[in-house]
Formats: sequence, C-alpha cells, structure tokens
Amino acid sequence: MATQHATDEAAIRQQVDNLIDGIRARDLDGLKPLYATDIVSFDVQPPLQHVGAEAKMKNWVDVFTIYEEPHYEVHDLTITVDGDVAFAHSLNRLSGRLTNGTTASGFWVRFTACFRKLDGKWLIAHDHVSLPLDFESGKALMDLEP
Amino acid sequence: MATQHATDEAAIRQQVDNLIDGIRARDLDGLKPLYATDIVSFDVQPPLQHVGAEAKMKNWVDVFTIYEEPHYEVHDLTITVDGDVAFAHSLNRLSGRLTNGTTASGFWVRFTACFRKLDGKWLIAHDHVSLPLDFESGKALMDLEP
Repeated sequence: MATQHATDEAAIRQQVDNLIDGIRARDLDGLKPLYATDIVSFDVQPPLQHVGAEAKMKNWVDVFTIYEEPHYEVHDLTITVDGDVAFAHSLNRLSGRLTNGTTASGFWVRFTACFRKLDGKWLIAHDHVSLPLDFESGKALMDLEP
Repeated sequence: MATQHATDEAAIRQQVDNLIDGIRARDLDGLKPLYATDIVSFDVQPPLQHVGAEAKMKNWVDVFTIYEEPHYEVHDLTITVDGDVAFAHSLNRLSGRLTNGTTASGFWVRFTACFRKLDGKWLIAHDHVSLPLDFESGKALMDLEP
C-alpha cells in the first residue's frame, strides 16, 4: 500500500512536471493529454467554470496570446492519493516575457489539481487556480508573497 | 465497491450540508470539526493560504463579522471518491443580511473541497474558494452567473 502510494505520487508529480514543461513550451499538444475529457476547471480568468478539455485548451490559448515566454514555477507541491483518486495543491508563480515585448515581474496563484486514474494514467479531472481578493476595493491581490 | 463509494459519497454530501448549516447558523463550534487539523485553505480573502484549522476558523470569524445572516447555497455538487480520499466541487452563492444593516444581493464563488477519511470521518483537508478576475482592470468579477 505504501509502495503503491509512492508510485502513484511519483506519477502525479511527473504529470505536474509535464504541465510546467507544456506551459513553458506553449505546447498545446503536450498539455491536452494531461486533462480528463470531462474536466471541470475553475481558472483565474472568467467564466466561472470551463467544462471539458476543449474549453480548458482555449484558456491556454488565451494565456499564450499574452505570454511569449511564460515561466511557471510550482512551489511546495503536496499530493494526497488513495486508490484511483488524488488531490494536489501548491503555490505557483507565473511570470515571463509578454507578446507585447515587456517582461512581467509575475504574481503568485493558488493551484489545486484533482486527479483520477483513468486507463492507468493520472489525469486532471478538476482544477482550481486563483488569487485572493480585497473586498473593500474589489481588486485581486497580485502582490502577495507566500 | 460501488456500494462503498455510494456510502462514502453520502457521508461527504452530509459534511457539505453540515458546512452550509454551520455557515447559516454562524456556528463556529459546528464548523471546526469539519476540518482536518492540518488543513491548507486557499480562501477568497488573503493571505494566499490559511494553514491549520485555527487559521481557517479565524477566517470564518471575519466572515461572520460582516454577515449577520449569511445565506450560503451549494449548486451542482460533484463528488469523486476512492478509498480514503475524495474531492468535491460546486458553484456556491453567498448572500444575506450584513451586520451594517444592509442586505447583500450576493455573488457566486467556485468551491473545491478535498477530503480525507480520518478515524472513519470525512474531513476537509484542503479547500479552495475563489472568484475569477479581469486582468485588464485587476478586479474580481462579482457579477458572473453560472
């Protein structure tokens, strides 16, 4: 059981590494197979939810329209797994060179990814990425540090 | 297996019902046992993360300072469970009468709760609640509808 958990956790960590690599390379073909076809995604940008892998990929297209060289770091990734279900969370930082020529100093987001093992592969069945907000101003807090 | 999944899903759904009841009743003693002592919470308000049940409860105190009669609705709750691990997500709406006497028309949030079965009880080990943001203005989008 402990060995199986360790094997599964390593496979999930590899999928998160694949996510980082896919974002840095702006590689839509590399990113799409990480997601379950029926993923429900709560992403930083609207709408409230993206349902299905196609909708999720459109969101990545939007990000890559803004970022020429996106740099995505995952910090303190914690994975909990049993059987065919797992969840992972971390604090991630997005920065990089923009398509408009400027370089974004970056901001931290909270990252939650929930996995299902489908046909032997750990796929992201649900994810949630966000920033906290300040209720007084209605502004997202983009300058917070962990 | 199917029966065990159904039993676990019902128990988790009951815990979400307990969460709703606890919020509506502003019942801190009812809310605290829903969380694992080492919960990592990514909540609507700062900081980036609340670590531990005590920190999470402080966040509820803040909410109850603003809301005299909080009304919390959970829509389309989806639960995925296997073994001792589960994740759930839904679109929730917070509204109600405020302590300043006005009534808030409310707003939708995205809700993710990740559970572990600890000593036979399904506890929230990680949660993530947020609104999407508009990058152009930096504002949280509080008027989105599902």
